[in-house]
Parts: sequence; structure tokens; C-alpha cells
Amino acid sequence: MLVLRVDDVAVAEEVSRAVHGLLDTGQRAKPVRFRGEVLLVLPQGSRELLDRLRTFPGVKQIHEIAVPYPLVSREWQPETTRVRVGNVTIGEGMPVVIAGPCSVESEVQVRAAADAAKRAGAHILRGGAYKPRTNPYSFQGLGETGLKLLRAAADAVGLPVVTEVMSPSAVDVVSRYADMLQVGTRSMANFDLLRALGSCGRPVLLKRGMSATVDEWLQAAEYIVAAGNSDVVLCERGIRSFDVATRNTLDLAGAVLAKQRSHLPVVVDPSHGTGVVDLIGPMSLAAVAAGVDGIMVEMHPNPKEAFSDGQQALTPVQLEELVAKVARLADSLSPVYAGPGPRREYGVRNS
Amino acid sequence: MLVLRVDDVAVAEEVSRAVHGLLDTGQRAKPVRFRGEVLLVLPQGSRELLDRLRTFPGVKQIHEIAVPYPLVSREWQPETTRVRVGNVTIGEGMPVVIAGPCSVESEVQVRAAADAAKRAGAHILRGGAYKPRTNPYSFQGLGETGLKLLRAAADAVGLPVVTEVMSPSAVDVVSRYADMLQVGTRSMANFDLLRALGSCGRPVLLKRGMSATVDEWLQAAEYIVAAGNSDVVLCERGIRSFDVATRNTLDLAGAVLAKQRSHLPVVVDPSHGTGVVDLIGPMSLAAVAAGVDGIMVEMHPNPKEAFSDGQQALTPVQLEELVAKVARLADSLSPVYAGPGPRREYGVRNS
Amino acid sequence: MLVLRVDDVAVAEEVSRAVHGLLDTGQRAKPVRFRGEVLLVLPQGSRELLDRLRTFPGVKQIHEIAVPYPLVSREWQPETTRVRVGNVTIGEGMPVVIAGPCSVESEVQVRAAADAAKRAGAHILRGGAYKPRTNPYSFQGLGETGLKLLRAAADAVGLPVVTEVMSPSAVDVVSRYADMLQVGTRSMANFDLLRALGSCGRPVLLKRGMSATVDEWLQAAEYIVAAGNSDVVLCERGIRSFDVATRNTLDLAGAVLAKQRSHLPVVVDPSHGTGVVDLIGPMSLAAVAAGVDGIMVEMHPNPKEAFSDGQQALTPVQLEELVAKVARLADSLSPVYAGPGPRREYGVRNS
Amino acid sequence: MLVLRVDDVAVAEEVSRAVHGLLDTGQRAKPVRFRGEVLLVLPQGSRELLDRLRTFPGVKQIHEIAVPYPLVSREWQPETTRVRVGNVTIGEGMPVVIAGPCSVESEVQVRAAADAAKRAGAHILRGGAYKPRTNPYSFQGLGETGLKLLRAAADAVGLPVVTEVMSPSAVDVVSRYADMLQVGTRSMANFDLLRALGSCGRPVLLKRGMSATVDEWLQAAEYIVAAGNSDVVLCERGIRSFDVATRNTLDLAGAVLAKQRSHLPVVVDPSHGTGVVDLIGPMSLAAVAAGVDGIMVEMHPNPKEAFSDGQQALTPVQLEELVAKVARLADSLSPVYAGPGPRREYGVRNS
Repeated sequence: MLVLRVDDVAVAEEVSRAVHGLLDTGQRAKPVRFRGEVLLVLPQGSRELLDRLRTFPGVKQIHEIAVPYPLVSREWQPETTRVRVGNVTIGEGMPVVIAGPCSVESEVQVRAAADAAKRAGAHILRGGAYKPRTNPYSFQGLGETGLKLLRAAADAVGLPVVTEVMSPSAVDVVSRYADMLQVGTRSMANFDLLRALGSCGRPVLLKRGMSATVDEWLQAAEYIVAAGNSDVVLCERGIRSFDVATRNTLDLAGAVLAKQRSHLPVVVDPSHGTGVVDLIGPMSLAAVAAGVDGIMVEMHPNPKEAFSDGQQALTPVQLEELVAKVARLADSLSPVYAGPGPRREYGVRNS
Repeated sequence: MLVLRVDDVAVAEEVSRAVHGLLDTGQRAKPVRFRGEVLLVLPQGSRELLDRLRTFPGVKQIHEIAVPYPLVSREWQPETTRVRVGNVTIGEGMPVVIAGPCSVESEVQVRAAADAAKRAGAHILRGGAYKPRTNPYSFQGLGETGLKLLRAAADAVGLPVVTEVMSPSAVDVVSRYADMLQVGTRSMANFDLLRALGSCGRPVLLKRGMSATVDEWLQAAEYIVAAGNSDVVLCERGIRSFDVATRNTLDLAGAVLAKQRSHLPVVVDPSHGTGVVDLIGPMSLAAVAAGVDGIMVEMHPNPKEAFSDGQQALTPVQLEELVAKVARLADSLSPVYAGPGPRREYGVRNS
Repeated sequence: MLVLRVDDVAVAEEVSRAVHGLLDTGQRAKPVRFRGEVLLVLPQGSRELLDRLRTFPGVKQIHEIAVPYPLVSREWQPETTRVRVGNVTIGEGMPVVIAGPCSVESEVQVRAAADAAKRAGAHILRGGAYKPRTNPYSFQGLGETGLKLLRAAADAVGLPVVTEVMSPSAVDVVSRYADMLQVGTRSMANFDLLRALGSCGRPVLLKRGMSATVDEWLQAAEYIVAAGNSDVVLCERGIRSFDVATRNTLDLAGAVLAKQRSHLPVVVDPSHGTGVVDLIGPMSLAAVAAGVDGIMVEMHPNPKEAFSDGQQALTPVQLEELVAKVARLADSLSPVYAGPGPRREYGVRNS
Repeated sequence: MLVLRVDDVAVAEEVSRAVHGLLDTGQRAKPVRFRGEVLLVLPQGSRELLDRLRTFPGVKQIHEIAVPYPLVSREWQPETTRVRVGNVTIGEGMPVVIAGPCSVESEVQVRAAADAAKRAGAHILRGGAYKPRTNPYSFQGLGETGLKLLRAAADAVGLPVVTEVMSPSAVDVVSRYADMLQVGTRSMANFDLLRALGSCGRPVLLKRGMSATVDEWLQAAEYIVAAGNSDVVLCERGIRSFDVATRNTLDLAGAVLAKQRSHLPVVVDPSHGTGVVDLIGPMSLAAVAAGVDGIMVEMHPNPKEAFSDGQQALTPVQLEELVAKVARLADSLSPVYAGPGPRREYGVRNS
């Protein structure tokens, strides 16, 4: 694809209008705001197109990028993006731990969860207020009430909060309470939602669709970035395969590949990725050793009484042990990765 | 699950309130309107719960249903639902043919497509105005303009129209122009959208998610029915598998299984299901022989110039031949299915 | 690839020796006997290679074939191969029904099965004497004793027999008793077995591997043909997918695609393909309507007492009904397929 | 299942004969030799069966085991099996590195590979002499010549050797040259081969079938153990999924699950598991951090000239860097795993 750096939106629109007939997309390209710059993304097109663009006044630079997700690619930006979530930065080198219950169920439960997350050393609190449930008669979450409880519990312990948003119409309300908005696996291809998140003013945690290829996942991220929001964190959470021994098949290699192809930080969710409590620890350490930017795990004050996903939730004690192991592993990786580059670049090149 | 027939909404709410403590769902059940009746759906629960419900004033009947999609199950309603779309009925016995372009591209194109569909003998016109595209820079459809063109073209030839809706906020506008609203494969688990379709006043064509199990698909249908709309048609359109020789793997057995488990009519989309023009004919005939209620195929006046999916679109001539074959096969199936039951019951039982 | 028609084996070996240095395969090509001709198959190679071959004495013709399975491709042979199994021909236009129990269990059982198959109108008897079982402690089949019982039962009713061979060392013994040798799904990539079948003197029924692509399946067939046996019948029996509602996902489009790409006849096994008795009927009819050359179904005199796979076996009565339906459908397809070409060419082209 | 410890083979056979009528397997159970003991494995059966067995003279102990792979389960043997391969032990705690070319191509190539493997610090040399190739015209390996070259090259540098065996008839010849025999992914369900390996006198490296569940993989291992050989090492090498960005989907969680369910050591092959050179390093470290017993990687003296799989082969320099990283990671994991248990038990329990 072609990414044009242009002087301003007016130039972008003029270019778009002028080259419309030379494209085969059936529509005009729209200007993109990316970190203070105005860009225009066009399909590769013909030699004629390229010649025309080069002489266009107000077009500062033209980049040819081989992948269909130009703005999130490492071709476009070699260094990993750092995403700020409250007082935490994802993508900086040390793995971040996001933890909390599947659903916000009550004030008591979410307070206990927040306390436990904080005590365990987790960096960000997770918890669902709007729950995408397979069955219409299952618990669907507490909605805005849940958001309030989550916010209060997080504030009480000083943690930032990530929670899911399922619908464009809910982006505003969720943005009021959360530090980061999560797009769930079932919504990865909810393109209206992705577009709406372009202007939400919050970072976005984009889970991989359970049957999305890595390239489709990166194009979903491109939707958000093209809509104006470049603070996107990718989250691998397992894909569907034939083996039901685990709830999903955690595609850790896919997560590393996403990190190699894209500058966006990547976290891994071994709770949904395996659905088995005894696999969360080993796969968390595996993810950290593979060089990803963090993990996201489910923890419930009392997993046996959870409204949803109790079978894959850690207890507070298990979380504490896990965070300690992750921290020790991250520390000890410096000698492993010793050499010219810093630790977090490991995932990017195998040399 | 338990399905209660109750006197009215007030009774339903009273029951819901009363038994809340006996359930473990974390929320109160909501009354459901189903073809003039008021129902309340509850999880199976305890013996205590059942005893309590039996003595509750205003509870007329209690059905225990083994599957998690009670209202769309054949346990609840043995006979196939007939869904009226304009002047066409799906589920009546003879297979319905839905045909048209992937996208509405222009007035000329959609007129030509409508003419060709009509001339070929198709029963319903399809065409996309809101397109869910993997890439943010691809053609995204003409939106409401496209809806108007599609409506006008369909009216000109006297065909009803089905078109996709991607977002709850677009349900109203699409309902104004279309006779049936399509939920695409990427939206099957867009639960807010499914809920919004409960009150759209139009039948819904629910495509199977590309990695959804048959049971998840039926639960998605249950969302729409539980929200008040029992006119749902299921559409199998291929699932993701490891073999890239076809775009998707058309799960015809899954379509028949859905028909056996549910009273909703089922149509099959071999265009997306295979992505290969030469397979559309054989798989259409296969679907009809397997006893489904219709097929949905892509046809473009000029496939090579299509903005999207041209490689899997029939030409008008190919559609005409296909409709003729489908009709002859459907006619000739009477002797095949001769015996105690009517033709359309074949798919339901193998005897 | 290049397929050379040469005068004799000596020429083939001379060519092979001469061009060895121009190839990058690491080994010399071997002569292939294909229906009385001597062939040599070489990788595409360079222009230099082709020039050299053209001037080689004894090279009669050179065919360039685009697919990696040249001898089984329709490029090489446009018309469908007819495979003779005892007194039955597969690939002639009318669908063949292969039926019988999963395993040969006893003389009484296999006699009853043979009688039932014959009475139902099936054309070929199936039954396993060597059983590939997932668990080492499960019933492994009666071995040669089973072969004898199967042969006797088939002879008593005048049906030819197909049975599985699992190992190169068993090819001889199985060939003594069976009219056609089956390669099971777990053996599709048992290349030593495929090579051994090249000289067994019997037709081979090659099941698709449960995770094999269509192209891998055709290359497995090419192994047998390249080893000297061109009487191969392909059998689609379902692939692995994420949905456990059916035992496997019957890839009927894959079967039709195999038929379009290859001249080998293709049969479909809806018993293993679905694992659900109620789906066998609909999927058998679907397969016939899609234009394949036959079906293969499990039938047991008493499914509930079967040592293996009882849940997917038809009763004798169900088989009789199914064969009748298949026959009526096949008869009635003539008007459906009416037009320039004969019926069996339908599957091959969609026009 | 029931595992009986009995006095001797005669007792086992007497028990088997006596209880035959009480079982529904269709065959008599066979005695199993397991590390000097004689065992008899029976299906769970009835209360009557159990009562009968308890009073049988010569039956020393009866174990009820819940899984269908009793002898390889951790229920049967809690501690990890240590498998001796030449002078190397797999399963002892420190991860073992197996490295070498896909195929043995020539003396020069395999010598260079052996030198490089040794210099890099790998523990075992791999290399294929019998190659299971999808295409019949591809390089099929050098056969016994290749085995001799491999053995000589390994002896020259003092490394033990693992190589693939594809057929029961080749077990003897491969056993003469190799220290460990590999069962490839296409042969995991070649049950005749597995049985033949029961008496080969060599440890076996059993790769997971590309579409095998973890439980099927463990049952394949049970075949070998039940045939008399308890020195089995499991190897995860990626499963088939829909995403073609990687050659296979490395199921690291499945490898850890196998280790939790079975006492057999588990190694991981990220070369076939990903098919991408840049992913081998990150996934090797991930596997080690997850607690597996070793890794197996492809390395070629000159990947660009490899007859097969060059795109996923490390260079000698890359291997050297990888082994160094693996060693440093393994060393540094001690503090990570600090606590009551030894390091290698980590993978087994998450606490």
C-alpha cells in the first residue's frame, strides 16, 4: 500500500478526489491522523498513479508498504509503541500483569479482587461489566453499575482498569470509567466498534478473534489506528482447534509473529487461551520468555463461586505466586538476552 | 432449561423476582414474548425450584427442555417455522433461491443484477450496502445510498430484498429498505445486534459464525427469538478449516443437524462456503438433496469487474442454469422422498 | 511437472541418468508404468533441461503439467477412470453403494451383514479384519481369520469385498482375500504402504487423511499410481474441525474438488464423515446430487452390539431404505443434468 | 482401566482366558512387560469382574486408572521417566537440545552438520535417512546409506543420533545405526509400527500427529509401552489450524498438558511447529520456560541449499546462539522455580 505524508487534511482530500478514478476500490480514501501527522493511505495502484502523486503539491513523502496493515507494521515504525494505561506503560520492556475476575459480580467481590490483584503485584485490574455470553439466559454483566464498582475498587487500591466494550453505543460510557477499553474475541471483526474506538481517547486492548489469522488481527488493529487512535495493545487469547483438551489453543508463536510484524505491544491471555488453571502458570512464563509485553489472567477471590469462567480463574494466592515467578523470570532474562540489543527487542529478531 | 407459559408479563416478573434467590445466574430472568404468548425461561435449577414453580399462580405450563436453546428447538416446536419474506415463504417445502451481488456498487450494476436474478427465477434479491471488510481501506459499501438503489432495483422487478446490518444503530435504517435483515458471519456473536433485531419487525437471516459450533449458532438464534422476534432463518456459509483449497469448508452436515435440532428454516450459501465458482452448482444441488430450505448465491452482472468477491460470483447465465437445475431436482425429489412424510421432513429424520 | 512418454524403461533410465545434474531433487527419477506405457516424471526444471529432453532419442512426448500430482490429474487424462471391483465398476456414472460392518466380529455377524447388504441392494461389501484403533487395548480385528470369514460371506451372496490393509507386510495376505484394498485415514501418508500397493494387483480405495488437504490426498494417490497401480478410488470421510457436534466435518466440496482436479473416481463415507446415524441419509443423497461416484456406509446387523462404531451404523432396514432413495435420486437426476453431457460429467464442470 | 500386577506371564494368560467372557472387547487381553514386572491391562468392566479378579491366585495388585493410557499416566507413575539416549538423559531436569538437518544429503553435509551441532553445544544429532514426503517425486532420503553417514558423522563428534523410521520392516536396520528411533507426525497412528517398536531395544521419540489430540498422542505412546518398551519421549511439533502464517500451530500448552498427564518426558520442535526461522528462538525459550524436557531444531550447514525444509533451518551460528540462550535460561530458572520442589516438577503443577 501507499502511505502519503501530506501537509494537511485539505491536501489529503484533494489528493483523494484527484486520484479516485485511478483506484479500483469503489470509494475515496479518507485522511488519517496519526500522532500529529496527516496521512493518506492508498492501494498500491499503477505506475501512473505513483507518478501523479509524486508531483502533487502538499504531498511530502510517499512510502510503499508491502503489508495490508501499513500503519501498524514495523515497516512503518520500527520501534515498539509504548502504550500508557493510567500510571502503567505497556511495551517498555518489562512484562505487565493484568489480572482480575471474568465478571464484576458485586461490590464485595470486586473489592476483594482489586485488593488481591494489588497485593499480588499485578499492574492493571481487569473485570467485565458487559459480558458477551454464548447463551442469552446466562449472566450478562452488571452494565454501568458494574463499571462504577470496578472503578471504585480500582481507585481504592490505585490500579488502572481495563474492561470490555461490546457496542459502539457503549464506547462513551465505558470510556468514562475505564483506563483502557477491551475489544473481546467475538468483536474483533465488529468494524463499527473498531471505528468508534478511533476517537474514544483511551487505549484499546484488541483481542484476537478466535478464528482470525494474524494478518486479519493486524488489519483489525489498523481499523482503530486509521480511525485516529494509535494506542492499541494486541492480546492473543487462543484460537479454535480440534483438540478440546484445552478450551482454546494458545497460539504463542502467533503472538510473537504479531510482535515481529507490528510495532504494537502484545500481551497473552493464558486463562482463555487454555481454560485450565494448571496451564496458566507454565504458559505465562512461556509468554514472557518468548518476549511478549505482558500477560492477562483471570483471578477470582473465590473461583468456585464465580458467575462465569471459574474453572480457569486463579485464586489470589496462585496469582501472587505467579506474579513473583514472572518478575523473577523477567529479571533473570537480562543475561539470557545479553548482547547488543535491549531485552524487549528479542521477540523481534532471532539472531 | 425450563420454559414457563405464564398468564402475562406481570406474572412473569413476579415469578422471576420470587425465584431469583434459587438461581445461580446472577440476574433476574426476563419475560419473553413468543407468538402472542408470554414465556419465562429459567435454568434447570433444583427440585425445590421446580416444586415452587408448580404452585405459582399464573404459571400455566412448565416445559423441561434439554438444550440451551429452548425456544428454537424442535423439542419446543416440532414443525418447521415458515418465514415470510415479502411474497416468498421460506420453510414451506420447496427450496428458495436467494441471489445477487456481494455489494451494491452502482444503480446500473444493481439494476442489471435484479433483472438477472428475476429472469433466472431467483426468489429473493441479495446485495450489500454495509460491507464488513477485513481491510479498513477496502470498499466499505454505499450505505443508505446503496439501500435505496437496492430497494428500487428490487421493486422494479418485484423481488423481496435481504441485506446485511452490522450495527444496532443501523437496524432502523436497514429495516426501512429491506424485507429481511442479514446478520453476517462476523456478527453472529454480536449480541447487542442480535438483541436489537428482536424488535426490528423484519425476519432475520442469521449466518453461522465462521468458527461457531452448531450449538453456538442456535444459541445466537435464541438471542433474537428471546428478544421477541421468532422469524429467524439460519444460513450455513462455511467454517474455517486447515484446507485453503476452498475459501471455507461448507459444513452441509452441520446445516442438516441445525435443521434436525431446530424448527427454524435453514439455507445454505455455497458461494462463501466454497469461494470457487465451479463448486457452487454441485453444492447447491447437494444442499437441496440434503433437505435444506434454500440456497443463497452470489451473482454479478460482470464478475470480473466486481468490487468484491468476483471470483465466487456466478454470471447471470450460470445462475439461470443453476435455478433450473435446482427446480428440476426439487421436483424430482418427490419420488425420492415418497412415503409417509412430506418432502421437507426428510432432513429431519433419517428413516 | 514434466511427464515424458518414452520408448521403454531403458530409455527412461538413460534420460534420468543424463538429466540428474540438472535437477535439484537429490535423486534420480524412476520410470513409471502407466497402463502399458513407460513414463518418466521430472520436476519442471530449467529451459536448458527442457531443450535437452526434446532432443533425446526415445522421448516420444513431453507434457508440462501444472499440478504436483500429474498422473492423477485431469490435465493428463480428461475422462474419469473406471475402476473394476469384482463385477462392479466405479466411475461409470451410476453411484455405487459400499456397505457393511466396521469390523468383522464373527461368522454369524458377517454372514448376516452380507445378507443384509445384498438384500438392500448394495454393490460392494465392506468389513474390517485389521482395525486401526486409537487405544491399544481395544478390539484390533480378527486378522486373517476375519478375512476368511468376510470372503466366504461375500461369496455366499455374490458381492465383491473391500477391506483395510494397515501395513506393507500385510498387502499380500489381504490381496488374497479382498477385491479392493482400503487405505484408512490414518494411513493416507503411510508412504511405504502406498508404494507397496503399486504392485498389489488390486484396486485401492484411498481414504483422505483426517487433516489432509485435497492436494495432499491427490499426491497420496499419485504415490500409488507412480508405483504402477492406476486403479485408485478416492474416499472422502470427513476432516477434523473444531465442532464436535459431528465426529468429523464431511468435506463434500472437497470431494467434488478432488473429482474436478483428478480423473479418479470419488466416493463419500458419511458414516465416519458425520458419526451420526440421522445424518447418513441426508449426506448420502447430498453426495449423489453433487455428482460423486458412490457412497460407503457402515451397517451392522445389530448396531447396539457392535464391537466398534455402533453409534454410526445403519440397521439393515435403514440401509435398504437408503439404497432405494439413492437409486431413485440417481434415476431422477437425468432430467436435472439433461443437456449436452452425460450425468457423471456434472460434478466436473459447473456450467 | 484396570492394571493388574501378576506373578508371571502364565498367570496373566490364565486371568485373560478366565475373564474373557466378562469383557466386551472382542478379544483376550495380552500380558505386558513393564520394567521387569508382568502386567495385565483390562477395561474397567463390571463389579463382578473386579470381585473375580480380587480372588484370583497370582494377582498381586489391582489398580483402577481413570485414563485410557494407564501405563504412561502419572496416576500409574508419579515421577518423570528418564530416558537414556547414548550418553544423554532426557527427563532429568535440564533441557536437552536435539539438532541437525532435515535430511542426510551427503557425507560432506552431514559431517558439517555434526560438527556444527557439537560445537554449538547440542546434545543429540538428528537427521533423516528415510523421509516421508508429501510428493512421490520429491527426494525420499538416502536410506541405509544415509544411516551409515549419519552414524559415522555422529561418532566422529561423540553425539548420539535420532532418526526416523517409517515402516515396521525398517525397524531392525534403523535400530542398528541409531540411538533413538523417531516416529514422525504422519506415522503417529501407524499402529503396526508402534507395536514393532515395542521390541526394538531403543528409546523412541514419538511425534504428535498433526491432527491428534493430546489423549490420542498418549494412547499412541501407550501402544509402544504396552508392546514392551517404556523408553518413550513425546515430541510436540505443531498441529494443523486455519492460520497459514505459520506452517503449523505449535501447541505448547498441549505439550505441558501431556507432561502433566504423563510421566514420559516431552520435547518441543519449534522448527516444524512454526516453519519460520525467526520464531524458532522465541518458541524454544518459551518451551524451556514452560518446563519441557528439551527442544528439537533443524539446523543445516547451508540452509539455502537444503534438499528439504531449508526455510525453517537455523544456520550453525544461529544454533550456537540459541543453545547458549537456552542454557542461560535454564540456569536462571532455578530462582524462578525456587521453592519446595525441583525445577523439572514445575511443568507438572501450577502452584
